[in-house]
Amino acid sequence: MTPKTSSSPPVLTIAGSDCSGGAGIQADLKTFCAYKCYGASVITALTAQNTIAVADVFATPPQFIEKQVGMVLSDIDIKAIKTGMLFDAENTRAVVRSIEKHYSSSPSTKPPIICDPVCVSTSGHTLLHSDALDVLINELFPLATLITPNKSEAELLLSQRGFPMKINALEDMISAASRMILIFASHAVLVKGGHITATIEDVNRLAKANSQVRVLRHGLLGENMEILLASGEGRPDIDFNPELVVDVLQERGGETTLFVRPRVESTSTHGTGCTLSAAIACALAHGGTLVDAIDSATVYTHLGIETAEPIGQGHGPLNHLHSISKVLIPKPTRFNPYPFTKFLINSTAPTWKAYVEHDFVKQLGKGSLPRSAFLHFIIQDYHYLKYYARAYGLLAAKSSAFTEIDAATRTVLNILSEINTHKAFCHSFGVTQEELDSTPETTATTAYGAYLIDTGLQGDSTKLLMALLACLLGYGEVGLWLKKEATKEDSWVVYEGNSYKQWMDDYSGVGYQQAVWLGLGVIEARASGDPPSVLRLEEWKNVWERCTLLEKGFWDSAMANA
Amino acid sequence: MTPKTSSSPPVLTIAGSDCSGGAGIQADLKTFCAYKCYGASVITALTAQNTIAVADVFATPPQFIEKQVGMVLSDIDIKAIKTGMLFDAENTRAVVRSIEKHYSSSPSTKPPIICDPVCVSTSGHTLLHSDALDVLINELFPLATLITPNKSEAELLLSQRGFPMKINALEDMISAASRMILIFASHAVLVKGGHITATIEDVNRLAKANSQVRVLRHGLLGENMEILLASGEGRPDIDFNPELVVDVLQERGGETTLFVRPRVESTSTHGTGCTLSAAIACALAHGGTLVDAIDSATVYTHLGIETAEPIGQGHGPLNHLHSISKVLIPKPTRFNPYPFTKFLINSTAPTWKAYVEHDFVKQLGKGSLPRSAFLHFIIQDYHYLKYYARAYGLLAAKSSAFTEIDAATRTVLNILSEINTHKAFCHSFGVTQEELDSTPETTATTAYGAYLIDTGLQGDSTKLLMALLACLLGYGEVGLWLKKEATKEDSWVVYEGNSYKQWMDDYSGVGYQQAVWLGLGVIEARASGDPPSVLRLEEWKNVWERCTLLEKGFWDSAMANA
Repeated sequence: MTPKTSSSPPVLTIAGSDCSGGAGIQADLKTFCAYKCYGASVITALTAQNTIAVADVFATPPQFIEKQVGMVLSDIDIKAIKTGMLFDAENTRAVVRSIEKHYSSSPSTKPPIICDPVCVSTSGHTLLHSDALDVLINELFPLATLITPNKSEAELLLSQRGFPMKINALEDMISAASRMILIFASHAVLVKGGHITATIEDVNRLAKANSQVRVLRHGLLGENMEILLASGEGRPDIDFNPELVVDVLQERGGETTLFVRPRVESTSTHGTGCTLSAAIACALAHGGTLVDAIDSATVYTHLGIETAEPIGQGHGPLNHLHSISKVLIPKPTRFNPYPFTKFLINSTAPTWKAYVEHDFVKQLGKGSLPRSAFLHFIIQDYHYLKYYARAYGLLAAKSSAFTEIDAATRTVLNILSEINTHKAFCHSFGVTQEELDSTPETTATTAYGAYLIDTGLQGDSTKLLMALLACLLGYGEVGLWLKKEATKEDSWVVYEGNSYKQWMDDYSGVGYQQAVWLGLGVIEARASGDPPSVLRLEEWKNVWERCTLLEKGFWDSAMANA
Repeated sequence: MTPKTSSSPPVLTIAGSDCSGGAGIQADLKTFCAYKCYGASVITALTAQNTIAVADVFATPPQFIEKQVGMVLSDIDIKAIKTGMLFDAENTRAVVRSIEKHYSSSPSTKPPIICDPVCVSTSGHTLLHSDALDVLINELFPLATLITPNKSEAELLLSQRGFPMKINALEDMISAASRMILIFASHAVLVKGGHITATIEDVNRLAKANSQVRVLRHGLLGENMEILLASGEGRPDIDFNPELVVDVLQERGGETTLFVRPRVESTSTHGTGCTLSAAIACALAHGGTLVDAIDSATVYTHLGIETAEPIGQGHGPLNHLHSISKVLIPKPTRFNPYPFTKFLINSTAPTWKAYVEHDFVKQLGKGSLPRSAFLHFIIQDYHYLKYYARAYGLLAAKSSAFTEIDAATRTVLNILSEINTHKAFCHSFGVTQEELDSTPETTATTAYGAYLIDTGLQGDSTKLLMALLACLLGYGEVGLWLKKEATKEDSWVVYEGNSYKQWMDDYSGVGYQQAVWLGLGVIEARASGDPPSVLRLEEWKNVWERCTLLEKGFWDSAMANA
């Protein structure tokens, strides 16, 4: 099998199915999505359960577990495996056998394996037969990078090996973890503290007593955050001094790490253990260290509980989707290379059409546009181009890279050279330089020009680019449309002999069109490089549509003054 | 059961499990995540398969299907259901029975049901026994809002009812869809066109011949997009004239809708049908109309194929995660009400510490700060405050709401009144107005002040707020820290009798702190209202850290001039 690089590394869960979606492979697959991992899932047992109770469990035949594992591993380059509920001794053995079988010929390709030793459901339902404990300990743990027991699982596992102990405090968790790393063969043990109360004093005392204990705090204030602390005083919606949950990691090398976070009082805890081990597997698949992976996973799971919405009538599921948001503009593809520009045009289609198929344009194409209207237009366009050049100057001033300064400045120079062509063009229509300069700006011109400058001063360079786009694209569109219509049989466009032929040629010509393509590229790169939020996309759309309307107003004014 | 409103509506899939993760309930759950729906899943059969073949199928006992459906529906307020592979007659009956049982007492609460009549896998494996066809048609279809057969499923279903036909062209699809709506009892039929070739001419011909046929195009250029079309000429990475895929929707009311998109040549099509029907269910659960839901789902599925990365060695899965991105800054919570500010401080901790625990600050707290250093500082601070006031003036000019203009302007007035206190303060240290005005700015002052103005001119108002934050937060932090240290036993801070007592009081006082809390609120609202991309977050962090360094430089300069 050729290893394939992927931005979504494949992760496999081997666990039970929770039809209500909060735990088991369902929680795992949701977590994989949130971590942008590709999820595969081998089902060891079906459960009929909901947020209140487990009604029944139906075990997968062991041979069928082996078949599933075999099909997945022989085809997909799995970067991490987690195991959850395995149900009984036979099924646990099937899992061990199928993993060992696949990696026996190349042990170095075995990915990290996180073993969540699921024994009993929150509601008290047995999820692992007692005869499976020894198989778990003797056969699966030796394959595991990490095992993640909670309080009662750790007690059960230790007792099974003749070390009964009660885990009631943080110190007990640390002893349990040290003991487990001695007697179990996994590389590391994470004893989860969800059922144990701890305070910041407990953590500080422990850290002080043992300098080898590393403490990672989350959702808690650190040094030099007095300002945040003070802001919370007397506010019931803020709690900077919560009870804590601490998970204890013991690694084979001797390192102990405490993962500390606030305790959330919540009933949305169904599937917490599944979610945590799935998240650890994902973070490892993305290439993190074990400590970083657990750190990320505890934060992810904590936020899942804290942001959960009520679902069901018992212990509801976590919110697995708190850290993802929908992308509003899709990535450019072969069939849709300009998704952002297409979005702008589509979402303002009537305005855009009113601009690019303006009566001014149609009459220009027919050659029937009154000369006075055209003269009005080109004189006002002369004034407008001064704003337009200044706006690109402002864009240069707002740029942060030399390439951007270069592009904006070249555009200013292009506009200045266009001005010379424009003057010559005006001259051919009998408009003198003096007339150009002495004709006052219309309101339509001032509105549009000043809006460009205002937008540039008010927002960032991307917003200014949005404002500059309507003019750039619209004239390109009009030029191409007229030219295309002109080539049709019995066309309404009069090309040869049209007094405005030169104007049509200019905007459909390769020089102008190349400027359009450059502009398209820049705007698409902005939209995909810094994907807009709902708010910013709306703002960009508004600026675009406003300029489209101002363009229309510009031609309205020309027609009204014909 | 109390109906609960949710921003993540619960959706249920009843289907088979694909351990390799590309199809079945796995594809469904991934799709639910991408649509921000809560996913539940009843498993009708396990498969051992991968991207190459289906090795084996293991059916869930019918009673256990009923149990699963019962547990889910009795607890969770499901907003849409989709069914996929049902395997055999018994299991199909079990699905029908359990749905009917739950909704019999309140039929009006029955959510939309999308039935994907999965019969045969892409690789040719039978996924529905032939004796199940009649159950599907007679018992499940009458419950369905929509059925979604592909070419071969449509042929099979029609043949089962004595209407054999071959579906080879778009016209055949339309006849098949009309025929099916007549003989089957579902509300609507979507005949999927993935296996049928169509061109834009076919679509136009059909739309012309029948004015009642509605056409929805995606990934295709529309009207007034000549500029986009022209940009693609001669570019092999752009294809504006692709072969098409058309899905045909026939509704019971008589409406026909064609969903048209480009055909993607790809082997990443494993699970396409599952994904499409799951996406339709999600869009309906969110409250869309049937046509909008199918429109959204076809686009989602199309992009899933077009953006897929290679996984496995056969027909790989779609990319289900193309339209989601990771949120970089979590939502504010009770334990972490200022996630963005905490991120800024944490990610620049050494710089922040070098600023707020500067030697200047420590000596000031001890009362050992040389008077000359403090005088240098307050004179330069006088100059700095002019920039600072101007920067808030600029912020007012860049604001888009009256409330924002108000907040910025009040801050300017606060700074101006602070200037008067500052002058009196300077006076108490023997510094005259003349000396204040005649002392030149240091490079440190100009660098910091001019950087504020430059940032304000260069970026948007949020970027300017980032620049203003280091000063606002830092002085608040220093004030609170010194005050807190002063209250400790044997404190190093000398409070009473310290010549700089007034300065400590000012910045730890409630007046200044309230300004800090207001600022914190504004900045957090910006970060969560317009969640930053990787690029913007980096930019914001850089501005913040730059100002933190400039603050440090300000105090370095005071110490150097002591």
